[in-house]
Amino acid sequence: MSVASGTVPRAAARRAALRALLPGAGVDALLVTDLVNIRYLTGFTGSNAALVVHADGDAASRLCTDGRYRTQAADEVPDLETVIDRASGLALAGQVGALGVGRLGFESDSVTVDAHTALEAAAEGVELRRAPGLVQLLRLVKDEGEVAALRAACAAADAALADLLAAGGLAPGRTEREVALDLETRMREHGAAGPAFETIVAAGAHSAIPHHRPTGAALAAGDFVKMDFGALVDGYHSDMTRTVVLGRAAAWQRELYELVAAAQAAGRAGLAPGTAVSDVDAAARQVVADAGRGAEFVHGLGHGVGLQIHEAPALAKTGTGTLAAGMVVTVEPGVYLEGRGGVRIEDTLVVRDGAPELLTCTTKELVEL
Amino acid sequence: MSVASGTVPRAAARRAALRALLPGAGVDALLVTDLVNIRYLTGFTGSNAALVVHADGDAASRLCTDGRYRTQAADEVPDLETVIDRASGLALAGQVGALGVGRLGFESDSVTVDAHTALEAAAEGVELRRAPGLVQLLRLVKDEGEVAALRAACAAADAALADLLAAGGLAPGRTEREVALDLETRMREHGAAGPAFETIVAAGAHSAIPHHRPTGAALAAGDFVKMDFGALVDGYHSDMTRTVVLGRAAAWQRELYELVAAAQAAGRAGLAPGTAVSDVDAAARQVVADAGRGAEFVHGLGHGVGLQIHEAPALAKTGTGTLAAGMVVTVEPGVYLEGRGGVRIEDTLVVRDGAPELLTCTTKELVEL
Repeated sequence: MSVASGTVPRAAARRAALRALLPGAGVDALLVTDLVNIRYLTGFTGSNAALVVHADGDAASRLCTDGRYRTQAADEVPDLETVIDRASGLALAGQVGALGVGRLGFESDSVTVDAHTALEAAAEGVELRRAPGLVQLLRLVKDEGEVAALRAACAAADAALADLLAAGGLAPGRTEREVALDLETRMREHGAAGPAFETIVAAGAHSAIPHHRPTGAALAAGDFVKMDFGALVDGYHSDMTRTVVLGRAAAWQRELYELVAAAQAAGRAGLAPGTAVSDVDAAARQVVADAGRGAEFVHGLGHGVGLQIHEAPALAKTGTGTLAAGMVVTVEPGVYLEGRGGVRIEDTLVVRDGAPELLTCTTKELVEL
Repeated sequence: MSVASGTVPRAAARRAALRALLPGAGVDALLVTDLVNIRYLTGFTGSNAALVVHADGDAASRLCTDGRYRTQAADEVPDLETVIDRASGLALAGQVGALGVGRLGFESDSVTVDAHTALEAAAEGVELRRAPGLVQLLRLVKDEGEVAALRAACAAADAALADLLAAGGLAPGRTEREVALDLETRMREHGAAGPAFETIVAAGAHSAIPHHRPTGAALAAGDFVKMDFGALVDGYHSDMTRTVVLGRAAAWQRELYELVAAAQAAGRAGLAPGTAVSDVDAAARQVVADAGRGAEFVHGLGHGVGLQIHEAPALAKTGTGTLAAGMVVTVEPGVYLEGRGGVRIEDTLVVRDGAPELLTCTTKELVEL
């Protein structure tokens, strides 16, 4: 139940920043129903909530949740009036008219078609307007409190992998599933609330499957072992991939590894404020294409990470927009040779004026165990 | 990567059952974009997919996913033609015209307002029609393969709690967070892929918070300790709550416990095919109300459980519909005395002709440790 020190003033500042975007969206208030956005704007972490951020200020704004969370809401969000109602979004939509709202924005990128119909009925006399992506726009650039949480999450993953290696936990005979559980348990020992996503451990030919789910297959000498995993700390996610070889790397493994490492370095070198996200993707992709492996790099270069494991910006061919200082992104090229093996190397980094800040500090030299 | 034996024919039978619902919905095909529904209908477990189930049969139906999942899709869904495209829903919407679809149903209960607009643009010349809840309707009644997975998930949770108690893992001085991690690790040792949801361990006054997140607070002699947890096995979720006392129960604790146990028994007794779900809720709620504690039972009685931790039917005052054999639901009344402590007792059960089948078998006698 404890609220991280400083959450309440930060949340109030974020609501003020959102308020500044409302006139541009042509609305008097925004109905926020996405739970991650609600957490960002209030600190509330329950599983049912809606929030109205009113242009007039916090006194006219409302949080709504159900009876299970009455105590938690009072604790986490002492600075907003809270309504208790199970149908949280509909309840607030029905109240905004009395708060002087004529045009109510809603998150058309997360509200379903059917929920929108229900909101229309509830918000009698109030015009509903699409207002997608406003909170996500604010979430693009992390404040130092958020970076601190991300740094802690990345450190937990680094420490877990170091412990795993020190304990001899990557060895022939262990199963992918055992290694995955081992990594997750060790991340918790280093302060994670849990894994940031389903841990990927892929050995041998499985390493050629970009998103492989760990199986009971045993690691064997000579295998590539690809581990893509992250820790969850204070709601923030880390994301890191390392690929190692069990034993001495064969020539083809070393060649593949060096290629991906070069592409990854090119991607990291591209992380600077003002750079188009598609150019960062292109810088890494060109390295792979020059080696004749372009068709085997089957996914985007990276993605933003924060309160969600995948968030804006997308570092991809089709990505739009430019980087700014304070964005936190992954850089994770991969090349996959079906039936043989694959390599992915991934870091989480903060875009800074000057060189980016590396949050995942495990070595990227080829590790031969 | 292994596909549970029998998944492919089961998935084909489910698509056939869905096909039978299409004329009633007035559509020639359904565009399925909800990933849980796609898993149910195909066995595909990747994180990006769309599916068209065509009234004409599987030959005219299509799965779409992106390049990361090419191998996995071929392995998990060998019986459907698969399209590779990152924008999976839009890609299929653009192809259905050529497959003779005039009216395409979409899941208006999960497609967002903005995604619907994009689908309208992609599905040129094809009429999009709302078709919510069709797959959820099929998912209401579990087949024996699904019940077997749920039984295994419940058994993992039972075994984890038994191990925890046998190891003396519930004792003064341990923190809520340690107990939660302990339960989760033990569930994995008994075959769980992970926890089914965020484990709740709430000691002392925290037990009065229905959805408490484990903290660093230490358990103390005399505390109620409420544990709400579940295991994930083959995609299926278990859900169980037990509340114990550390030491001899005080009179008020015993009284509260017996009240909730009586309400829970009344709820279980109401589980029979043909019973209105609201009547099951009422049967348990009446017991609590008769004791003058109605206002302190602040949530519904239970919910369906399966590929999602919360799914239809809702056993609640406002729930609609009746029970049928093969539905799997929780029964979980709780009474919460703010600042003092609370009790919740929860089972997962299969509705059967005759008595329901109990899947969570840990004792519901008051345990004093």
